[in-house]
Amino acid sequence: MIKTINDLVLKAKEIETKTLVVACAADEHVLEAVEMARQEDIVNPILIGNKTEILGIFKQHNINESNYEIIDERDKPTACLEAVKLVSANNGYYLMKGLVDTSVILKAALNKEFGLRTSNRISHVSVMEVPTHDKLLYMTDGAMNIAPNLDEKRQIIENSVKIAHAVGNKLPNVGIICAVEKVNPQMEATLHAADLVKMNEDGIIKDCIVGGPFAIDNAISVEAAKHKGITNPIAGNIDILVMPRIEAGNVFYKTMMFLASAKSASVIAGAKKPIVLTSRADSKESKFYSIALGALVTNL
Amino acid sequence: MIKTINDLVLKAKEIETKTLVVACAADEHVLEAVEMARQEDIVNPILIGNKTEILGIFKQHNINESNYEIIDERDKPTACLEAVKLVSANNGYYLMKGLVDTSVILKAALNKEFGLRTSNRISHVSVMEVPTHDKLLYMTDGAMNIAPNLDEKRQIIENSVKIAHAVGNKLPNVGIICAVEKVNPQMEATLHAADLVKMNEDGIIKDCIVGGPFAIDNAISVEAAKHKGITNPIAGNIDILVMPRIEAGNVFYKTMMFLASAKSASVIAGAKKPIVLTSRADSKESKFYSIALGALVTNL
Repeated sequence: MIKTINDLVLKAKEIETKTLVVACAADEHVLEAVEMARQEDIVNPILIGNKTEILGIFKQHNINESNYEIIDERDKPTACLEAVKLVSANNGYYLMKGLVDTSVILKAALNKEFGLRTSNRISHVSVMEVPTHDKLLYMTDGAMNIAPNLDEKRQIIENSVKIAHAVGNKLPNVGIICAVEKVNPQMEATLHAADLVKMNEDGIIKDCIVGGPFAIDNAISVEAAKHKGITNPIAGNIDILVMPRIEAGNVFYKTMMFLASAKSASVIAGAKKPIVLTSRADSKESKFYSIALGALVTNL
Repeated sequence: MIKTINDLVLKAKEIETKTLVVACAADEHVLEAVEMARQEDIVNPILIGNKTEILGIFKQHNINESNYEIIDERDKPTACLEAVKLVSANNGYYLMKGLVDTSVILKAALNKEFGLRTSNRISHVSVMEVPTHDKLLYMTDGAMNIAPNLDEKRQIIENSVKIAHAVGNKLPNVGIICAVEKVNPQMEATLHAADLVKMNEDGIIKDCIVGGPFAIDNAISVEAAKHKGITNPIAGNIDILVMPRIEAGNVFYKTMMFLASAKSASVIAGAKKPIVLTSRADSKESKFYSIALGALVTNL
């Protein structure tokens, strides 16, 4: 059972080494994280971007150039397209964003001709470890989907369930997070919760157990759930927290990272291959964890 | 400078003792918290409710009956109305909810004839202390206002600013929390943020400095704000976090309490007097802190 981010990294080391293609790779923290993952045999890296700048960063950090395949491409949209083409064409490859706007790499990734698009919506999934909780918490979506409707939430759940499967949780408990635990017609999120639970019961949403509405307390604390008289057997024991809107998800992620001393790994799910799309503010370690998570998801 | 919940309690002990009227007082944890506040000279309590049950709880917890004025009233709506009448008529009195549904006490509190209603909207404000942050964080509203519009957010801010003033922060930094730091027409919360900042610049929202949109990281971490290139002088140094909707506020509150080891004190603001309206799940300590906060707010 994978209970920590470290367990997740160990599992990523055990599987076959994947090929990570980094688009616009000339980013110091990205390259440091990629080098960490390469040293751990998690990835073989292919870097696409400004080769002069990449080699400059290598020199600064004593990274040995001979371990890397570097494709010199200074135009960012072109670098992204080349990276996506490589990933799309090759099994065991996945994609990471370097120093380029998210919109540019996503445009390339979702290119209809040779991109990574599927019929599914793409969404952001974080796997989080926090000292106050005894297992990993998955959270979606605090970064990409602003105000998903019911069917979009179904897809967001399905994407996150695949990530949990990749990490080793074969039947995750999915909690639809709201401000309250009861359906309230004035709160759309609670209506979505009831519908998503039904879709799970009806076999539309598979390979997981969906419950809700839950508030955070009764999603993650059995004691809090008992206190509120909630009898749902998965109450207090949720693996995947599905947020009502981007604001709640973003608030959760950042409160965990900045005020609860959490560690996290994140990927974009729902495309043919996972996309590692860390933000500049993420630490080197956080980027490394996300690369490890991406390797596991590529392994599916 | 009040930097911790303990400082807040010390300040409540220093001011003149207030009279706390507890409606439907026969609740074990409420009475324990009230007794703590009485022992600290923060409150003189008046209890309205089922006297037999109240005395039963007193016996169980060795609470001395002679320190209490008890009004025997077994009908809950009547007990609430009597409590509200007392508070409304007397300076230095404030209200606390005991064992009664929130809707019942709020109906009494907002009674037009003798209630505590003002022209302002009522809202929930929490004051939180967390080991990872060096000052108190105020948060509003994760409990009462579902999806406030712009003018309702103005009132929610004004209510919270009064609470900060009561605690001793005379010019709080107010951060309008969103999922991003830039105005995005697809995210209504960011448009509200821009409008609320302008209303503050124009002198409509007073006695505070409003900034935003902020995400949680750049609201509470100067380093994170610098990293994102945010030059707003209050970035990273927010006192009052104004949440876009009830879900984000509730997620923040519960993540802080259940995953970040926070302490909190909360009151309902915007009525003539503060209303202490803790939930059953709150600890005795949390209820005590809320009573102390209520005493400070009553002191305004």
